[in-house]
Amino acid sequence: MAKPHAGQETARKDFPVAQVRRYLEPGPIVLVSSSWQGRRNIMTLGWHTVLEFAPSLVGCMIWNGNQSFEMIRQSRECVINLPTASMVDQVVGIGNISGAAADKFTHFGLTAKAATHVAAPLIDECHAGFECVLHDDALVERYNFFIFEVVKAHVRPVPAHPETLHYTGRGVFMLAGRVIDKSALFRPDMLVE
Amino acid sequence: MAKPHAGQETARKDFPVAQVRRYLEPGPIVLVSSSWQGRRNIMTLGWHTVLEFAPSLVGCMIWNGNQSFEMIRQSRECVINLPTASMVDQVVGIGNISGAAADKFTHFGLTAKAATHVAAPLIDECHAGFECVLHDDALVERYNFFIFEVVKAHVRPVPAHPETLHYTGRGVFMLAGRVIDKSALFRPDMLVE
Repeated sequence: MAKPHAGQETARKDFPVAQVRRYLEPGPIVLVSSSWQGRRNIMTLGWHTVLEFAPSLVGCMIWNGNQSFEMIRQSRECVINLPTASMVDQVVGIGNISGAAADKFTHFGLTAKAATHVAAPLIDECHAGFECVLHDDALVERYNFFIFEVVKAHVRPVPAHPETLHYTGRGVFMLAGRVIDKSALFRPDMLVE
Repeated sequence: MAKPHAGQETARKDFPVAQVRRYLEPGPIVLVSSSWQGRRNIMTLGWHTVLEFAPSLVGCMIWNGNQSFEMIRQSRECVINLPTASMVDQVVGIGNISGAAADKFTHFGLTAKAATHVAAPLIDECHAGFECVLHDDALVERYNFFIFEVVKAHVRPVPAHPETLHYTGRGVFMLAGRVIDKSALFRPDMLVE
């Protein structure tokens, strides 16, 4: 029996874009993939926030010193990929070399998979991939802040709460921990998403 | 010997504002306190992102249905307080009642402490408190997105990595987990903050 490709043991499924907060609000490090004029790249990103459920908006501060900045600005799209803790060495590596020096998919043994709505490739090993198109560039000049709309979400159904990586600076990551359900203390209308 | 006030067992100390990413980048739920025309309020917030080291900028999406929205918009300041996991029931409670119905400091037994640069009170029980002034309101109308400058930070020195709360929707929180140091894999210039 052939060994399945890494990350394909459990196939990713379509997921409601209005619910991507479930994965992004807790603040994980994400890998942003992009494509422009025949080149592709990946960058690490920890400075992002959910902004709206529907349309599904996510704001990302992308430093303009990154190779990815101009590629995303020009193509006006990207994929936000959610790596899990097992990928920590790849995540650190991706953040510490320049896309000008190497093709990061090849260099880090990652699988580029075609997305549905954007040219930027999905990283197949990641727990989730969110296809994004630029929704508003009003703050790109002033703060390098891109507001994206998530137009399609691919999520592995299990585990429901993947062990994600949360950067705290100085090379130190906090790993996602125990999950507690406090829904019994919420007003029903607060539990819609 | 008198029992110390809650939260004062280890005093909070001044902390460099350029390093608040250490606490905010991992995506914790925060409590935003505000003050306006003799009233004070607290709201929960999970939709925030670091935007810059210096000046120390943080972007926050504050829903305009919250009582706090207008108080912060008018006063142009707030405090971002960092609660730890032991405060989870208070955090949930604060997010599930309106500031119009009760004074949340009194209702939840929290200590309001005078800040240095803003009229909004610090919540003394929290691990950290970041005094913020509104830096840019360009996206407040369109996205309820406030860009604040952190002008003073108060942080309890221990523990270095407090157990924070990370909301994932539907009443479920992820608690901060194990910490791993990967600094040996970083380029030295990537470890400045």
